Amino acid sequence: MRILFIGDIVGSPGREMVEEYLPQLKEKYSPDCTIINGENAASGRGITEKIYRQLESAGGEVFTLGNHTWDNREIFQFIDQSHNMVRPANYPKGAPGKGMQIISAGSSEIAIINALGRTFMNPVDDPFPVVKKLVEEAKRHTPFIFVDFHAEATSEKQAMGWFLDGKASAVVGTHTHVQTSDNRILPGGTAYLSDVGMTGPYDAILGMEKEAVLKRFTTGLPSRFEVPKTGRAILSGCLIDLDRKSGKAVSIERILINEDHPFVSN
Amino acid sequence: MRILFIGDIVGSPGREMVEEYLPQLKEKYSPDCTIINGENAASGRGITEKIYRQLESAGGEVFTLGNHTWDNREIFQFIDQSHNMVRPANYPKGAPGKGMQIISAGSSEIAIINALGRTFMNPVDDPFPVVKKLVEEAKRHTPFIFVDFHAEATSEKQAMGWFLDGKASAVVGTHTHVQTSDNRILPGGTAYLSDVGMTGPYDAILGMEKEAVLKRFTTGLPSRFEVPKTGRAILSGCLIDLDRKSGKAVSIERILINEDHPFVSN
Amino acid sequence: MRILFIGDIVGSPGREMVEEYLPQLKEKYSPDCTIINGENAASGRGITEKIYRQLESAGGEVFTLGNHTWDNREIFQFIDQSHNMVRPANYPKGAPGKGMQIISAGSSEIAIINALGRTFMNPVDDPFPVVKKLVEEAKRHTPFIFVDFHAEATSEKQAMGWFLDGKASAVVGTHTHVQTSDNRILPGGTAYLSDVGMTGPYDAILGMEKEAVLKRFTTGLPSRFEVPKTGRAILSGCLIDLDRKSGKAVSIERILINEDHPFVSN
Amino acid sequence: MRILFIGDIVGSPGREMVEEYLPQLKEKYSPDCTIINGENAASGRGITEKIYRQLESAGGEVFTLGNHTWDNREIFQFIDQSHNMVRPANYPKGAPGKGMQIISAGSSEIAIINALGRTFMNPVDDPFPVVKKLVEEAKRHTPFIFVDFHAEATSEKQAMGWFLDGKASAVVGTHTHVQTSDNRILPGGTAYLSDVGMTGPYDAILGMEKEAVLKRFTTGLPSRFEVPKTGRAILSGCLIDLDRKSGKAVSIERILINEDHPFVSN
Ligand SMILES: [Fe+2]
Ligand SMILES: [Fe+2]
Ligand SMILES: [Fe+2]
Ligand SMILES: [Fe+2]
Ligand SMILES: [Fe+2]
Ligand SMILES: [Fe+2]
Ligand SMILES: [Fe+2]
Ligand SMILES: [Fe+2]
Repeated sequence: MRILFIGDIVGSPGREMVEEYLPQLKEKYSPDCTIINGENAASGRGITEKIYRQLESAGGEVFTLGNHTWDNREIFQFIDQSHNMVRPANYPKGAPGKGMQIISAGSSEIAIINALGRTFMNPVDDPFPVVKKLVEEAKRHTPFIFVDFHAEATSEKQAMGWFLDGKASAVVGTHTHVQTSDNRILPGGTAYLSDVGMTGPYDAILGMEKEAVLKRFTTGLPSRFEVPKTGRAILSGCLIDLDRKSGKAVSIERILINEDHPFVSN
Repeated sequence: MRILFIGDIVGSPGREMVEEYLPQLKEKYSPDCTIINGENAASGRGITEKIYRQLESAGGEVFTLGNHTWDNREIFQFIDQSHNMVRPANYPKGAPGKGMQIISAGSSEIAIINALGRTFMNPVDDPFPVVKKLVEEAKRHTPFIFVDFHAEATSEKQAMGWFLDGKASAVVGTHTHVQTSDNRILPGGTAYLSDVGMTGPYDAILGMEKEAVLKRFTTGLPSRFEVPKTGRAILSGCLIDLDRKSGKAVSIERILINEDHPFVSN
Repeated sequence: MRILFIGDIVGSPGREMVEEYLPQLKEKYSPDCTIINGENAASGRGITEKIYRQLESAGGEVFTLGNHTWDNREIFQFIDQSHNMVRPANYPKGAPGKGMQIISAGSSEIAIINALGRTFMNPVDDPFPVVKKLVEEAKRHTPFIFVDFHAEATSEKQAMGWFLDGKASAVVGTHTHVQTSDNRILPGGTAYLSDVGMTGPYDAILGMEKEAVLKRFTTGLPSRFEVPKTGRAILSGCLIDLDRKSGKAVSIERILINEDHPFVSN
Repeated sequence: MRILFIGDIVGSPGREMVEEYLPQLKEKYSPDCTIINGENAASGRGITEKIYRQLESAGGEVFTLGNHTWDNREIFQFIDQSHNMVRPANYPKGAPGKGMQIISAGSSEIAIINALGRTFMNPVDDPFPVVKKLVEEAKRHTPFIFVDFHAEATSEKQAMGWFLDGKASAVVGTHTHVQTSDNRILPGGTAYLSDVGMTGPYDAILGMEKEAVLKRFTTGLPSRFEVPKTGRAILSGCLIDLDRKSGKAVSIERILINEDHPFVSN
């Protein structure tokens, strides 16, 4: 079982990177399942149905979200009908959507779970017992379990990695928009990466116009953050191979495409 | 001008990695200046004079710090006498120690600056004007200016990178203890890396015993964090080449040494 | 049903105020139930069995806690045996102690609930559903339900007040150590006070030596906070009358005893 | 010198309370200087010129602000021309407006300073040295110095009170929107009150519609906070008397007007 995961798509530059490179990545790697974090796909804030369909057309098969899940109100129109949209599992009970989706991937099924961290973030339910319960439920259906842990603090991310080591196939972080270089297989067989990074503007701050962010930091004055429409872009992702029988991870590799790291088709 | 920078040394496993690999790294790369972040060198909390001398003997030439600067009270005994210890520059006026040191490196001088971020961290003075002023001061002495920006949030780190692009030779982050893969030369010629990562226990959470951290996360009960004394370790660093005339960065490479990435002597 | 509630006892000056004034307050007001928040009773950090017994001897009948519950490790020795110690109900499952106690008060029973807020505090379980469930459980035994909501943010405290209006008899805040003047009966019949305030040193900062706290604020240097042993003290509390049939609040009055507001025996 | 200070005006219900009761309060108390915190006067977010003039007509003579200073962009049009608008003094250098205004009051002058806390708030410059410097500057003109310290944490507020004890005439907090009952004269002669409270909707959460705030707390779903247009309202303030020679405080009394505490004209 081979998983391709693409990190937080930011605005139209992010979507264009997906449209340009995802087909080539799929051709190069032949993943069984392609997962995209789409929490910033609509101008940096949430996702719309149109954008969701656009990313599906480009090759996305499952979509995870994060703290920006509800930023675009359109999500309430389609999240409950969607079979491949995964919102953080540790929102309060009664939230629309699902925190886990189990979908077909090749000849098997794979469970995709999304959860939010709490350190330096808004209060939500404790991710540890919530994710544990979902992993146990998933285990009854499939050995292939992928967790996108959307969190700020490296401590909480590493804690989730060790917490699920030997239980989930892979724990990959999102949210900081910066890829980390700590991809590894934990001793119990779980693939781990603290953050997969983002897909969007390259000469920007977390994908937003750097001038606006700098203004806020240096003057304290209000400043609206927008996704730059032009300029260089980056695609960040990772490729994970799971043992077809045990679901344990065999390898996890980082993917980075930008002007400094051009895509190599082979 | 070639700079070797080693990220947050955590406890005795971190010091042992420095003693084992720093001589080999220096032989391999022949840096003009070797900088070590030592804020966690003493059992994860601050630094003592003995440890500082030990790291100097192992090859460290300048030492940066961070939010753990004052954790070990011994620092107050030697920081003011030290010519190569750099504490965060944006502590309130009157703090012991210095936020910048200018030292000899090869046939030139290099300025080393340390500063703390504020997002998700304790309140300190605004790092942007403080660092700006120090960079201007340094510029009067040398074109080689290295900034260790000790911060949590990727937004604030990238902001500092862009803020100093073309002004400092390099802006490298510390504090999250996880190396990022976003090493690059910004358009103005500044080498940038969001976080260089840590040097210490590998099967741990930020270098602390994972069982203790997991207990705190999953039970909320008190749990003292200690550096594990045994087990595998990691060394994280980066190598930066600066143009000998302009001080602008020519390259920035990540260094990672652990069982998954063994050291290659060349 | 008349409830006397005394806010966070801080160290020995706080205990001495209880010993001096609680008997007089009980004589003056004849409460059916006397509740004390004891999270800072042992040198400002947690509570010991000896101090707990001392406060019981002084007239305390039920003890609530807060974010400092586990600060003194002795608590683990007696919390599970105690029938009148109430720790925050929204700690993760499996925590020692109970989040609600139902005890005799006059000829009736009263339920005492303790919960932690999350805004500007460490992550814990969502207090809203946890408290709601306990209130429903309590309702099956008694109409008298007192909630000590230990929280920082006035928004979250007022939200809990309105959330429980008509469901609990009283929602009184603790944690900020400063009494608020907003005691009122909400339209549904719930007595509300954002914070009852603390009991301990008067010429101090939240009950800790002001010099140490000021040092931390103004220098950023480490500074150990201790409860001053001598000097003037304050006692903060409130008195709540509940309708004996419906359990709804009839009145809520603030109590403040210090040199500026001397106790009047009636 | 008698000062009347009215806490955070929230939206039109707050403005109406000022229009209804400020003339009566001025008649009853004959203050030499009437100060209003106006940071939430425009629909809860900032202030406009029209509202500023309206509050002036109602009797406001000086206006302090807070973390919502820049929420309404209109402020940039008039703050620099205004002689009686005081924004937080510890914004980064270069911010529009002034952090202190010295105005005529009776036959004397009074200095009004506004500053922001940092604990649980966005990063700004250190309020302690900034306020200290302004107090020293003010001292060269007048012994009457009033500080509105806009802060969340009671620790930081009390710290500022003790820090300025004997230096400023009064330190009164704002921002939590809940009045505290700890009005007192500190030993050095400084009037102190942790928070003066707000002026606006009474059956609300910090002046915003309680249903919307409760929705956010209990569901985590987005919810726009609006000031309720109808319903009961509250006015919160305090009255401070200063010695006409020394500028030291002689008394500080709380003012609270709502249905539970009707205004008494004397
Ligand atoms: Fe994101
Ligand atoms: Fe996010
Ligand atoms: Fe560190
Ligand atoms: Fe650090
Ligand atoms: Fe307390
Ligand atoms: Fe507390
Ligand atoms: Fe306000
Ligand atoms: Fe405010």
